[in-house]
Parts: sequence; structure tokens; C-alpha cells
Amino acid sequence: MPEPREHPIADAVVIGAGPVGLFQVFQLGLQGIRAHVVDALAHAGGQCTELYADKPIYDIPGVPRCTGSELVALLLRQTAPFAPRWQFGCLVQTLQAQPDGSFVLGCSDGAQLHARQVFIAAGLGAFVPKRLPLPGLERFEGRQVFYANAIPAPAASAGLQVVVHGGEESAVAQAVALAERRQCAGGDAGAGAPASVTLLHRRDVFHAPPEQLARLQQLRDAGLLQVVAGQITGFQTTREARVEHQTKQVTERIACQDLNANGAPAERLCALELLTPAGQTERLPLDQLQALLGISPRLGPIADWGLALERKQLRVDPATMATSVPGIYAVGDINSYPGKRKLLVCGFHEATLAAWAAAEARAGQPLPLQYTTTSPRLQERLGARVHE
Amino acid sequence: MPEPREHPIADAVVIGAGPVGLFQVFQLGLQGIRAHVVDALAHAGGQCTELYADKPIYDIPGVPRCTGSELVALLLRQTAPFAPRWQFGCLVQTLQAQPDGSFVLGCSDGAQLHARQVFIAAGLGAFVPKRLPLPGLERFEGRQVFYANAIPAPAASAGLQVVVHGGEESAVAQAVALAERRQCAGGDAGAGAPASVTLLHRRDVFHAPPEQLARLQQLRDAGLLQVVAGQITGFQTTREARVEHQTKQVTERIACQDLNANGAPAERLCALELLTPAGQTERLPLDQLQALLGISPRLGPIADWGLALERKQLRVDPATMATSVPGIYAVGDINSYPGKRKLLVCGFHEATLAAWAAAEARAGQPLPLQYTTTSPRLQERLGARVHE
Ligand SMILES: Cc1cc2nc3c(=O)[nH]c(=O)nc-3n(C[C@H](O)[C@H](O)[C@H](O)COP(=O)(O)OP(=O)(O)OC[C@H]3O[C@@H](n4cnc5c(N)ncnc54)[C@H](O)[C@@H]3O)c2cc1C
Ligand SMILES: Cc1cc2nc3c(=O)[nH]c(=O)nc-3n(C[C@H](O)[C@H](O)[C@H](O)COP(=O)(O)OP(=O)(O)OC[C@H]3O[C@@H](n4cnc5c(N)ncnc54)[C@H](O)[C@@H]3O)c2cc1C
Repeated sequence: MPEPREHPIADAVVIGAGPVGLFQVFQLGLQGIRAHVVDALAHAGGQCTELYADKPIYDIPGVPRCTGSELVALLLRQTAPFAPRWQFGCLVQTLQAQPDGSFVLGCSDGAQLHARQVFIAAGLGAFVPKRLPLPGLERFEGRQVFYANAIPAPAASAGLQVVVHGGEESAVAQAVALAERRQCAGGDAGAGAPASVTLLHRRDVFHAPPEQLARLQQLRDAGLLQVVAGQITGFQTTREARVEHQTKQVTERIACQDLNANGAPAERLCALELLTPAGQTERLPLDQLQALLGISPRLGPIADWGLALERKQLRVDPATMATSVPGIYAVGDINSYPGKRKLLVCGFHEATLAAWAAAEARAGQPLPLQYTTTSPRLQERLGARVHE
Repeated sequence: MPEPREHPIADAVVIGAGPVGLFQVFQLGLQGIRAHVVDALAHAGGQCTELYADKPIYDIPGVPRCTGSELVALLLRQTAPFAPRWQFGCLVQTLQAQPDGSFVLGCSDGAQLHARQVFIAAGLGAFVPKRLPLPGLERFEGRQVFYANAIPAPAASAGLQVVVHGGEESAVAQAVALAERRQCAGGDAGAGAPASVTLLHRRDVFHAPPEQLARLQQLRDAGLLQVVAGQITGFQTTREARVEHQTKQVTERIACQDLNANGAPAERLCALELLTPAGQTERLPLDQLQALLGISPRLGPIADWGLALERKQLRVDPATMATSVPGIYAVGDINSYPGKRKLLVCGFHEATLAAWAAAEARAGQPLPLQYTTTSPRLQERLGARVHE
């Protein structure tokens, strides 16, 4: 457990930067409440961005047609005047009520947040990448093994033997991009390019647009990228490798790169064990594994936060979107109430009611309805005050 | 009571073509239900069009800024694929459940509608023009007296002495437009222009944009328009006038224009009685009165339809938007449920739930959620089926 850091208390934390989380930020802004937004992903948009970025939506009122990513862009523009604090790449794992009625949230990376009110806009759950089910491999995550939400910048692969794992467009695109760096560098590893690029998939068949498949073939033909077909059945590390192989190369690498904090050589992933389509076992040496196996939502920790659930959704009061814990609201696909439909227009309404309820809870009294069209106060908050 | 006409039964009648009524039409369309829409006004848009057509709205999700009339235009575009039947200028006065569970709606003009399901999207009530509080004047409405929602086409004023009554922009604009017809016709009444144009208001002070006030002054200076200051205290009709004045002019007019169905001379409005700012009584002769005194919403007959009310709103089940009478739903500003806020985004959500509930009631079973983004059936209904 890392030491909890001291944090200023935020008025509101919004968990989830999907479309409904974004509109929650907007509605809180209208109420004069600044939000701190966290998402497990590296960017805003939730399902709209992850699952249908380029597909059209037709049922947003007043928007006859827009794609998932266009909708997110519009919502981001709408929240801009309220300058929310964004915190991406943080999977909220714990949420604990404090004696003073505030909340402490714990992120997967050990960071902590402190908030007066919490708005759970977690949709179908946190978008987390699919991981390889190999016990022990997690020891290398973030050092040698990387998944879809945290692929390192290309420079971090310089001089390394990189294996890109996956059969979909994202894996093909990443392998092509890395191999193109090799091409630019004239195949010279010294110029910031990987020493080798291997695209590994169960079979030598890939789902990607034709242009990309053609580019893949060119790079294979040019010897800048190899494709290996096989299933990963295990892996080898340098400690094991030293015992088994005692090759000079491995020993040297340990000596120069892998001293851990005590100066002792750290354990290092050095090869994957594969089962080929022909049924043979093979060994694939590597320095870095980039596994692009897709990304999918997982309710995960939310079920453990002590909030009333109903068929895996957070049960709310439809008048306020309050969960069973005062000060915690739930909006969008994550919530449930009689008549609930998992649609964007419903989530937007819910975010509106939640912001009103939260503002009234804070004020300790009912607040009068104000229109953005006519209220100087709202227009000032929106940065849209027209001096007529 | 006019004879009820025979009508084919509509699947759904939407009362009110305000923003929420329009989105109701859209959501019904997605459910495969074609709507017949009625509104007391001559056009769609409700409050957006009547009360803030040119003012900006900022809180429609995904629409960072649009004016009231822009929003209505977008919603109309969105409903277009579903080709609703529009019926404007119909104030629904009665709504009666039939023994078979369907409904008969009675309009102010005597027309009747027959529907299986009714969606009341009546907002703050029917927009009706402010009328002059002079007992007996209603006899001339639609013949010589016209209010804001039913101003006759300019040609209908040809050769007449027209009085435009009001102090706001719409009255000034109408007086200017009529006087300009006189100018075009070279002051010659024979060319389709009014014989005279009088702008009548309590005081000789008008609220209108400066350009329009300047134009008004030009037309006054040119003798094409006169301004009269005074309050209307009464009126005179030809029958009374004949008795009082016996002028040849009046008698002739009756002879040639005002024979009623029996061939007898009809009663005719011929002058207004005014109280001037100086406290004098004056008489203003006229053939036509156009009273532009504003238009405002009135709940009116809805309170008498036997539906459960709560502080003048229709009480609904927030899961379905069903009123206390099965088959009648209420959405938008007209409804009430715990947590209700009279906002557009809430009305849009309500219309969505109402359409789902109505479709399920029709199907007699729960219906699975479908997305416009992915459902071929919805895309076909939208006319947006992409053949990929
Ligand atoms: C293919 C497809 C098509 C669709 N088409 C339509 C359509 O046409 N019309 C319509 O109305 N709806 C449509 N939807 C549904 C719509 O996308 C959802 O209703 C909407 O995305 C819900 O928004 P949300 O913000 O509640 O959740 P999400 O979009 O799911 O976003 C939730 C966010 O919260 C984050 N998160 C969750 N838990 C945590 C945690 N513990 N810590 C940190 N972050 C967390 C996630 O990473 C995610 O980014 C469609 C959905 C799909 C999949
Ligand atoms: C100045 C102003 C600014 C606003 N700004 C905002 C804003 O920024 N954001 C926001 O969310 N909301 C705003 N609103 C509120 C928003 O306009 C309303 O919530 C919205 O118009 C409600 O839509 P509706 O369709 O329910 O009703 P309405 O817009 O009131 O439309 C109802 C329609 O039904 C018709 N009707 C009623 N009864 C009958 C009958 N018996 N027979 C026939 N026709 C009938 C009426 O003529 C009318 O056209 C504002 C309102 C005003 C007045």
C-alpha cells in the first residue's frame, strides 16, 4: 500500500469521462460546482469513443446525425468553460465515506482523491484492456509488458526486440508503425527504431483495412517485420534463462540494464513460449511485449463500494440520482431506476437532475429554476455573458 | 355543436408541437408509430419560437449554442423521416376516452380527432393571443377583428381602413408592412393596398428596433400611416351607426358586402371608441382591426380532461410518463413527478420513455433496447440504412 498523499478536497469528483460524465461536468458547472474527472482510459468518451467512434448516432435531440467521436468533441467543447480537472489513466478502485461526510477515492496507481460529492458515471464499467492470462506475467507490466490502454511511445522501443501481439486493426497498425520507424532509420537500430518487430497472432490472418494489410505485406517482404503464428503458452525470464542457457548476451544485458534498487540484477522477461498452429512448441525471444487484445468495460470494483445494487447497476432515486449513500450520485448506464433505458438522452437528463440535487443538498434549500437563455449568472459561468 | 366528422383512427396524437412534442414525434417514429401533431399555433416550436426565437440556449447536450428557432429547425429536421401529420391552428378543447380504450379529441374549430394513444406535450398551455376585453367584440373575430395567431394575408386588407393595435415590435412591423403596400401602390387603394393604415397604441411610444422606428417615422411623414394614441373603451357597429349617423357610405357598404346567409344586412364593426391620453373621447372609423397584443400560454381546457393534476401540472409515473388515464401520456413542461425540472433535456428524456412505454403497451410485452447506431430496423425507419 503506497502512503496516501495529502490532497486538497475537491467539490465534486466525477468517475467516468464517458458522454454522461462529460455532461455531468457541464451541469455541475452551471451550478457553480467545479468537477475533477477521472477515467481509467487515457482519454474522454467512454463507449462513444471505444466502441463506435466512427459510427453515426441519430437520436440525440437537436443533433440529427453525428458520430461517437463527434458527439464527444461537442460535449468537450460544452464543458470547456468550466475547466474541469482531468485525471486519465486512473481506475478508481476504492470509495470510502469519511466521518465528515466527504469521500476518499483510491486509484489503481495508488493516488488518492478527496471529494465532497461523488458522481459515478461509470457506464458499463471501467474500460480495461484484455490481459494475457499467464500467472506471473503481471510482474513485468509497465516495464516490459504493455497493454492497449498504456502502449509506450515509440522511442521507448528503440533498440529493442518488440513483439506486438494481436490480430485486430490496432495490433496491425502498431506493428506497421514500429516497422516503419525501422525503415526510416534504414534498418539501423541506433536511430531510435526497434531492433526487430514481430507481429504475433494465433494465426497468420488479420482483421484490418486492405491498405493496412497491403502495407504489412510490404514491410514483411522488406524484412522489416516478421509475422509469427502461435499461441502464448508460457514465458521465460532472465533468471530462468541464465540457468537454462547461460548465453553471454543475456548475462550482459542483466549487467548493464537491469539492476534493481539494491544493485542486484532484476528479473527480466526474455522469451515467450508458443504453441504453433502445427502443434509445435517454439521460443520467441523479446525485450518488449505490446499486447493489443482489445479493451472492454468491467464493472469491477464498483460492486464493492457498499452501494445498493440491482442487477449489477447502482440503484438510484430517480428524483435526484442519489445512491443509497448520501453524497454519492450515479448517472448514465451504471444506474438503475424504474423505467431506466440505457440511452444517451436519459443519461443527460440524469446528469441534470443529479447536479440540481447536489446543488440543493449543498445549499440546504430548494433552488429556483434558471435558464441558460435568460440567466445572467449562468451566462457568466458559461463565459457567454452578452452585454446588451 | 358542429356534427362530428368521421375520421380514420390515428395511432398517436401529440398535443403540442413545442420542442418536446417534436422529439416525441421522433421517438414515436423510432418505435414505428406515426404521429398526428396538433397545435393551437400556426407553426411548430412552442416556447422556443414564441418566447425566445433569437436568444441563445447553451444547455442542450451536444449543442454548445443555438437559438430557440435554430433548435426547432433541428428538431423538425430530425422528425422529417417520420412524416408526421401536422394540424396547426387547432386548440384541443376536449379529450374523451371511448369504451374501446381509444380517444376522441375535439378542436376549437369543431374538428374531431380519433387516436389510440395520446401524448400531451402542451407545455405551459396553448399559446393563445391576448384578446381585447370588450364584450361583444368576439362576434367580429375572423371577419373584421384579427389577433396575433391569425393575422390575415395583406391582400385581405385591400381597400380597407385598417387599424393595427399594439406597442411592440410585431405591431410596428405589421403597420409598416401595410403602409409600404400603400407606398408601392402609389397611395392607390385599387392596387391591393389598404385604403388607410392606423397604428393605435395607448401612448405614442413603441418598442421596436431603431431601424423599424425610423421607417415608421418616414411612413408617417409621407402620410402613408397615421399613429393614434388612445385606449379602446368601446366600439360601434353599422346597425348602431346607421341609427346614429345614417351616412350614405355605411349604408352602401352593407348593401354590397355584408349580406348574411339570409340575404339580410349583417352587423358590421365600423368604429372604435377611444380615450385619448388627454382624457378625451374619440371615435376611430375602421373596416379591419389587427390587434397584436402578444401571445401567451394558457393551460385552459387541459385541466378539465379528468386527468390527475398537481399544482396545475399533469401528474405522471416517471417510469412511463403515463397519466392517471391509461393510454394518455404527458411529457415536457406540462407534466409533474418527483424531481421534475422544466428543462428541455428533461422533456427529451420524458418523450423517450413515453415512446418506449407506449410501444410496450401496444406490444403487450417488454421490448429490447435498440441503438440507432447499430439497429438496421431503426436505421430503415430513419431512412438512414447504410448498406455496408
Ligand atoms: C455500439 C453502441 C451503439 C450505441 N448507440 C447508441 C445510440 O444510437 N443512442 C444512444 O442513446 N445510445 C447509444 N449507445 C449507448 C450509449 O453509448 C451509452 O448509453 C453511453 O455511452 C453511456 O454513457 P456513460 O457516460 O454512462 O458510460 P460509458 O460511455 O460507458 O463511459 C463510462 C466511463 O467510465 C469509466 N469508468 C468506469 N468505471 C471506472 C472506474 N472505476 N474508474 C475510472 N473510470 C471508470 C470508463 O472507462 C468509461 O470511460 C450505444 C452503445 C454502443 C455500445
Ligand atoms: C425565455 C425562456 C428561456 C428558456 N431557456 C431555456 C434553456 O436555456 N434551457 C432549457 O432547457 N429550457 C429553457 N426554457 C424552457 C423550455 O423552453 C421549455 O422547457 C420547453 O419549451 C418545454 O417544451 P414543451 O414542448 O413541453 O412545451 P412548450 O414549448 O410550451 O410547447 C407547448 C405547445 O403546445 C401547444 N398547446 C398547449 N395546449 C394545447 C392545446 N390544448 N391544444 C393545442 N395546442 C396546445 C402550445 O401552443 C405550444 O406550442 C426556457 C423558457 C423560456 C420561456
